[in-house]
Amino acid sequence: MTIPDRPRVVIIGAGFAGLWAARALSHSQTDVLVLNRNNYHTFFPLLYQVAAGELEAEDIVYPVRSILRGQENIRFLMNEVTEIDLAAKQVKTTDHVFPYDFLVLALGSASHFFGVTGAAEYAFQLKTLEQAIALRNHILFRFERALCETDPERRRQMLTFAIVGGGPTGVEFAGALAELIRGPLVKNYQALDPREMHILLLEANDRLLASFPERLEKYALRRLAKMGVEVRLQATVSQITPDCIRLKDGATIPLETVIWTSGVRGESFNAELQTIRNGQVKVLPTLQTPDHPEVYVIGDLAFMEEDGRPLPMLAPVATQQGEAAARNIIRQTNGQIPVPFHYHNRGTMVTIGRNAAIAHVWGRAFAGFPAWLLWLSIHLYGLIGFRNRLLVLIKWAWDYLFFERAVSLVVSLPVSQTHSK
Amino acid sequence: MTIPDRPRVVIIGAGFAGLWAARALSHSQTDVLVLNRNNYHTFFPLLYQVAAGELEAEDIVYPVRSILRGQENIRFLMNEVTEIDLAAKQVKTTDHVFPYDFLVLALGSASHFFGVTGAAEYAFQLKTLEQAIALRNHILFRFERALCETDPERRRQMLTFAIVGGGPTGVEFAGALAELIRGPLVKNYQALDPREMHILLLEANDRLLASFPERLEKYALRRLAKMGVEVRLQATVSQITPDCIRLKDGATIPLETVIWTSGVRGESFNAELQTIRNGQVKVLPTLQTPDHPEVYVIGDLAFMEEDGRPLPMLAPVATQQGEAAARNIIRQTNGQIPVPFHYHNRGTMVTIGRNAAIAHVWGRAFAGFPAWLLWLSIHLYGLIGFRNRLLVLIKWAWDYLFFERAVSLVVSLPVSQTHSK
Repeated sequence: MTIPDRPRVVIIGAGFAGLWAARALSHSQTDVLVLNRNNYHTFFPLLYQVAAGELEAEDIVYPVRSILRGQENIRFLMNEVTEIDLAAKQVKTTDHVFPYDFLVLALGSASHFFGVTGAAEYAFQLKTLEQAIALRNHILFRFERALCETDPERRRQMLTFAIVGGGPTGVEFAGALAELIRGPLVKNYQALDPREMHILLLEANDRLLASFPERLEKYALRRLAKMGVEVRLQATVSQITPDCIRLKDGATIPLETVIWTSGVRGESFNAELQTIRNGQVKVLPTLQTPDHPEVYVIGDLAFMEEDGRPLPMLAPVATQQGEAAARNIIRQTNGQIPVPFHYHNRGTMVTIGRNAAIAHVWGRAFAGFPAWLLWLSIHLYGLIGFRNRLLVLIKWAWDYLFFERAVSLVVSLPVSQTHSK
Repeated sequence: MTIPDRPRVVIIGAGFAGLWAARALSHSQTDVLVLNRNNYHTFFPLLYQVAAGELEAEDIVYPVRSILRGQENIRFLMNEVTEIDLAAKQVKTTDHVFPYDFLVLALGSASHFFGVTGAAEYAFQLKTLEQAIALRNHILFRFERALCETDPERRRQMLTFAIVGGGPTGVEFAGALAELIRGPLVKNYQALDPREMHILLLEANDRLLASFPERLEKYALRRLAKMGVEVRLQATVSQITPDCIRLKDGATIPLETVIWTSGVRGESFNAELQTIRNGQVKVLPTLQTPDHPEVYVIGDLAFMEEDGRPLPMLAPVATQQGEAAARNIIRQTNGQIPVPFHYHNRGTMVTIGRNAAIAHVWGRAFAGFPAWLLWLSIHLYGLIGFRNRLLVLIKWAWDYLFFERAVSLVVSLPVSQTHSK
């Protein structure tokens, strides 16, 4: 491939992977265009807190334009990509065509429903800010509805919440939801009987948090039980309808709220690029695609194995891959060959609630208050922008001290006027 | 009328009027039910700041349930009233019927379009939280769209914003919008030429802020001009379309954003109750309706004259009427006759932007920094809940010091999932 003096790099996606790639290309001899369907970057690790009414939407998102301001060689456009023409080296949006010399695909991931009937239609997801707010509204609205309901069976149905998937997102949301319900909602809806409120965490395998040591799983199970979350292992979901969830073993649970955190797949896109079964793109160790040395795939969308195991879809993998892809592009523009990517696993952690988290870092496993403090500081630090950090700290402190929730509003927005013109 | 020992009071609306009435009835010998279509109370005087991206939605709203918590005799339900049967003394919602002994109508107001073609369809309003967020999204989206637009005429059209109505809301929003655009947006969209951005304030009469002394109007005019707002007096709007606004004098201004702050009318309702031309209900000096001594109408919905002039639709009028109606209901339950309401006008003020406001208080008119400080403290104090006050103070301080805006996100929410079930 021939590379011009000042190559055009198009990055699709402004999540952790795309944004970190862009930042690593600042001040380089490239012209970078970042395309994203939203004008903001979402701090995904805290999305579940928006759904649980702990944080406001604006606390965990930050305008991409503000993040990239001052980078002379980087442009940002809020735009939906409709097609990627790999042969012509062009990215097409609804109203423009952008030619590129290098392409970085960082589209992220979507929910994977494994063909479960009704899951896509009736389950809530925790993949986007909009979904998190819709879920929060829905949960709060259940309580309002239950107040007006005289049939105890129907009330119990309205106040039953099932979380599908015992991975980190499922466990964290179950804990946050339990704290929301057992704290502020019980206080605010004193006419409702707390015994009619149920939180279920359904996991198809025989253990939670499969990537963590068993000792930490046991801790999480104990904590969740104490918080009133009913954990059911080996519970495979077979169907979801608007008013119940059915399990493979025949059990039917009447409810109105299912949150799907069970499966993740690569986000879909429109390009002649081979994907594996879960929608991910298999990349070379350099993060390039096999047939297109100018096309990089990074973050959740990239499939890559290390030590015989696929890399997890996590923020640290995405940011490190973003920076690595940027370095390789700069190498290519300098006539050097790209170097393989290696993931530096600094550890993983999951918070379960007030004072409770598990951490598996620096090769050590620990749980409880120290893990929670560590989780707190790392997530605060990770939030982009000092302003967000300060506001989140205040809100967390407030919740912690007064058992109050920031956000118990049912705000629904008319979409029509926003994008109609 | 016969009054039971423990009369049932139904209050419809949880704005300033309804909420203050409810609070004044706490610990009284009544059973109070507050019905509101949202589960939150909105601090209307700062709604325009949400539309201008200065504050987040959650900063200016507060859950009604939290406000009324601990009041044993008050219940709250989030519900839409479909009909009021004055003869049967019943309030009907979508799924319930609530009998009452006393009814307090505090439905507030809606935009009044005076029959201008296209105004209801194409103009943005500043009457609800949803509208404010939709307007913010729309404004920010104009800038994103303008970036992709190559035709300078089309770009100019996208970046022209007309505010109809030179009353307090129009002036305050014009100032806030000018600060949003001339500050953060110019910084964030450096590819756009600031000379292509226009803010128009259109007023049909020959002066702004008719209820203030002329000296303060002059000050406001000077400030707005300095901030780049073009004020056109005697400019009557005849038509609004998706891509232009037409004036009575024949002028046509191409644009994509019109904000209607010009007229206000009583909110509509379904009951056999006489209204005047602007939808308000004419009440007795006691705030009772002429034919129904058990029905009170308060706040923006009530029409009442004092010293030959109708009382303005303002928050202080609403809160004072709410408390007065509650006192009169308690009097009636004690066998006393209701007493007439008198409005204590403590003053009015309008902020125009950074360090600039006008105030007409304690019979004195003043403008500039002192007025702005007074405005700041009064509005901060008025926000319900210490938590909101603290967060708003931080955000204002941040904006003030760093000329940054809190909220430049285009977040649109799927309405369907929220209320579908």
